[in-house]
Amino acid sequence: MSVLNVELGERSYPIHIAQGLLGNAELIKSFIKGQQVMVVSNETVAPLYLDILLQSLSGLQVYTHILPDGEEYKNLEVLDGIFDALLKVPCDRQTTMIALGGGVVGDITGFAAACYQRGVPFVQIPTTLLAQVDSSVGGKTAVNHPRGKNMIGAFYQPRCVIADITTLNTLDDRQLSAGLAEVIKYGLIRDLNFFIWLEKNIDRLRQREPQLLAEAILRSCANKAEVVAEDELEGGARALLNLGHTFGHAIEAGMGYGKWLHGEAVAIGMLMAADLSRRSGWINRQDVDRIAVLLEHAGLPVEPPTELDVERYLQLMMVDKKVKDGRIRLVLLKEIGKAFVSDDYDADLLRQTLASRSLF
Amino acid sequence: MSVLNVELGERSYPIHIAQGLLGNAELIKSFIKGQQVMVVSNETVAPLYLDILLQSLSGLQVYTHILPDGEEYKNLEVLDGIFDALLKVPCDRQTTMIALGGGVVGDITGFAAACYQRGVPFVQIPTTLLAQVDSSVGGKTAVNHPRGKNMIGAFYQPRCVIADITTLNTLDDRQLSAGLAEVIKYGLIRDLNFFIWLEKNIDRLRQREPQLLAEAILRSCANKAEVVAEDELEGGARALLNLGHTFGHAIEAGMGYGKWLHGEAVAIGMLMAADLSRRSGWINRQDVDRIAVLLEHAGLPVEPPTELDVERYLQLMMVDKKVKDGRIRLVLLKEIGKAFVSDDYDADLLRQTLASRSLF
Repeated sequence: MSVLNVELGERSYPIHIAQGLLGNAELIKSFIKGQQVMVVSNETVAPLYLDILLQSLSGLQVYTHILPDGEEYKNLEVLDGIFDALLKVPCDRQTTMIALGGGVVGDITGFAAACYQRGVPFVQIPTTLLAQVDSSVGGKTAVNHPRGKNMIGAFYQPRCVIADITTLNTLDDRQLSAGLAEVIKYGLIRDLNFFIWLEKNIDRLRQREPQLLAEAILRSCANKAEVVAEDELEGGARALLNLGHTFGHAIEAGMGYGKWLHGEAVAIGMLMAADLSRRSGWINRQDVDRIAVLLEHAGLPVEPPTELDVERYLQLMMVDKKVKDGRIRLVLLKEIGKAFVSDDYDADLLRQTLASRSLF
Repeated sequence: MSVLNVELGERSYPIHIAQGLLGNAELIKSFIKGQQVMVVSNETVAPLYLDILLQSLSGLQVYTHILPDGEEYKNLEVLDGIFDALLKVPCDRQTTMIALGGGVVGDITGFAAACYQRGVPFVQIPTTLLAQVDSSVGGKTAVNHPRGKNMIGAFYQPRCVIADITTLNTLDDRQLSAGLAEVIKYGLIRDLNFFIWLEKNIDRLRQREPQLLAEAILRSCANKAEVVAEDELEGGARALLNLGHTFGHAIEAGMGYGKWLHGEAVAIGMLMAADLSRRSGWINRQDVDRIAVLLEHAGLPVEPPTELDVERYLQLMMVDKKVKDGRIRLVLLKEIGKAFVSDDYDADLLRQTLASRSLF
């Protein structure tokens, strides 16, 4: 079993990565202090993994709350349903909330844990590759608002993250690829060696070889943990983690939440960032092609949606959290493995990128 | 002008207490970093004080959002309305949110500031005595849930608190008395000298002598700040601040939010805590009478509502945040000026207190 410690002072926590962790009662129980536990999952994940988790929690007072599946349910109304489930018991302030599912379940459950009685302990059991490499580090929790994604939320660190690689066996190929988009992101922003490793191993990752998946998750989380440790509340360095996300969020919101998977939108977004970086003279066409080839091999889309025009993109991007005093701050590439944040790119070049229908 | 610093490390902030602060543009602007400001107030306070505040903010991009007045609007739906107002602009992550109003406006605006884009700067301008002595220290923000008061919220510290004593001139007598309930609380839990000072000056406080009000606010905030500095996230000592609140919350919820003012319910709650402390042998009947006399002189109710029976009380109290593993933890009195937290009181004596229709 790999264990990675996310170093955040008194809010530090471990990420456990291995096969079969859901059945490891001793490990899971070691992170639960009180008697009451509320497990939140969704209608897709619960039939697969809830029973084995409940067995590992035997002896505790365990309640469950099952959400519908999909990004479109990551909203205030569904959040209120979680509060209602907690208060119906009623669950007290020592209750541990466990998120069993992908990013949506983790984000909304984590935000519920942050807000319920002003904060209760939280354990995250991500069951998708995306959630294991992304939301498992950084403590970002949120729900969406009709006017913008992740606009309402909190920074709230879990007690621990349990990444059971066995759960990836039931992930469909599209979801696995969406997770690989975030994995590739870490290579792009700060780890050329990891990018090269991914170029070499992308096919075996798609074949779900457990050892390789564990290594990809560990290296992704380690990269993210280093960035987050420097900048817990996203004042500076952490912004690099948003490579592709400002474009990607605009695509997700513009196309309607749930139509594009988050990782798919981020894949296109990273390619748009690469395109703008090339137009700005920072990277060359070969770099862009190399990125596109890896994304394609990862099973990700590399062509932007034709439904959004430049004005709609800009309008959607203005709602992004990275906007400062009216300027959209973007993460761009100096080279593969080196990203930076900029708000003084040429606005015309941004428009060219947004108008482009073929990015490589 | 009195300035009290609430010491919370990097989250420390000042409380300014004086007459006429709303018109002090230099002071107010010194706490605003970005260009965008969202002022949240309510339909009662806005006609009185919004204009003068807006004058003090001239030159900034200022937006306003006016809530209906009343505790019954401190809910998720009204909170969502604040998010909608912010996103309609759209306000960015450097936006300062200003709460101009009493405890409800402060609690819901502070919670909105805690959650909007995972946290934006927050300035609190409390316009009631209760808000000036209570919510101005401690960073507790929240909304109510139909199943319980303040069940959804966050610990979130403001950049500063501006307590303009001039605003108390328009407060009606009932609201002033409700604020005095929390003032008396500080004397009861940890400051016998302050309690004696209040016994001496209660009439002049009700006549709103500015010097005395300023002193009462300063001494209340100083007491609260000392407790909060020890225990920001309410793990221990801070629980003392809840004297009367577990009983009081049950009264507020049981009678329907808005019928009893918070301070009125807390006044009765403190008397119930005193009654249980007497039945438990910790204080004597003279102490209880002395507390009741001060509360009466402050214009507060001293007789519990007849509508709630023992079972209903217990049911409502079980939803309280102070419940731990099924036991209701209560703040009780060892003597006037010395409170403690207990969950091993005699349950029969609690029932006697809850059943009692005359507490002194």
